[in-house]
Amino acid sequence: MPKIIDHDQRRSDIIDVTWELITKGGIEAATMREIANAAGFANGALKHYFPGKEDIIEATYERALAIVTSYVKLDGRRGLGALREMCEAAMPIDEERITAGRVLLIFWQTSLTNPKMYDKYLEHLRAWRGMLHRLIGEGRADGDIRTSIPDEQLVDELVLLNAGANVMSLVGPQFSTVELQKRHLESFFDRISQP
Amino acid sequence: MPKIIDHDQRRSDIIDVTWELITKGGIEAATMREIANAAGFANGALKHYFPGKEDIIEATYERALAIVTSYVKLDGRRGLGALREMCEAAMPIDEERITAGRVLLIFWQTSLTNPKMYDKYLEHLRAWRGMLHRLIGEGRADGDIRTSIPDEQLVDELVLLNAGANVMSLVGPQFSTVELQKRHLESFFDRISQP
Repeated sequence: MPKIIDHDQRRSDIIDVTWELITKGGIEAATMREIANAAGFANGALKHYFPGKEDIIEATYERALAIVTSYVKLDGRRGLGALREMCEAAMPIDEERITAGRVLLIFWQTSLTNPKMYDKYLEHLRAWRGMLHRLIGEGRADGDIRTSIPDEQLVDELVLLNAGANVMSLVGPQFSTVELQKRHLESFFDRISQP
Repeated sequence: MPKIIDHDQRRSDIIDVTWELITKGGIEAATMREIANAAGFANGALKHYFPGKEDIIEATYERALAIVTSYVKLDGRRGLGALREMCEAAMPIDEERITAGRVLLIFWQTSLTNPKMYDKYLEHLRAWRGMLHRLIGEGRADGDIRTSIPDEQLVDELVLLNAGANVMSLVGPQFSTVELQKRHLESFFDRISQP
């Protein structure tokens, strides 16, 4: 029988291995050689699946993003309820999402010296902020959001809270607990419901 | 005349060079070889000043921290006024502090695979949070802080806001503007002054 190579499966295996290497040893541990070794490939063979290391990091970041967004299920909901659901789902409140945050931390850093990755993150950020804007607008139209604080400021506050929680759940988890993260969101939603 | 080597100056020069390399090219650009090259040293000579790369990264992080704390001048002030001053000073609101935030981002990531750096950051975090707690306590005693939200939650909210701003001023500066950062703090201080 001829050997059948499942190209997508191989790519997924390479991402698994890279995920493991960078969450255990940081970006520096994920050299092409280490990735190839851990995936059981000859060094040069990786290139059949990813042109370079940056493409592997990018695919690993996409997986982190897919994990986080997989928790966000709006199911046709709108306005304040959907906003609350989305914000809670995107917080690093369990092991899987904390690890995804770690991959994101690496991606942020890498993107600062890589214009393609930088633009990719901006595009994600634009879409995320756009969704927050839409839900806040719906919440106002429904009469559920009554604060006089401008939408732009509310959106930014949620984004900073999420980014800050991603960082602190890694570098200061005994202080920035999951319980506190939830209380911040509670407090935010209480606040914006009031005029 | 004998050649006089100013040891502290050399260490400082090495930190300059490392700062430049990592803020331009990320942590991966700051190899021992590159640092030695850029500082005009033979590779082995770096070891006279720093035992290893991690010690250089640590010293570079200390400089970033020193930059941020140099803006925080409490001058005997206390309570709400001092809290506001401290929080504003620690935000990435100018080029120097944004760059310091970049070094911090690299340090966070590196600390996740280096227990000594991890502990060092925790120690900083503990001191910073302790100071926030003290000033909030004074603000309550003075009657300036009247919110019913617990101190621990206020402290954590300020820490997440600061960490989030550090990240977003790097990866999404056109969205998370300096003006918005200032408005978040205004809004926070308005809020905690009310019962």
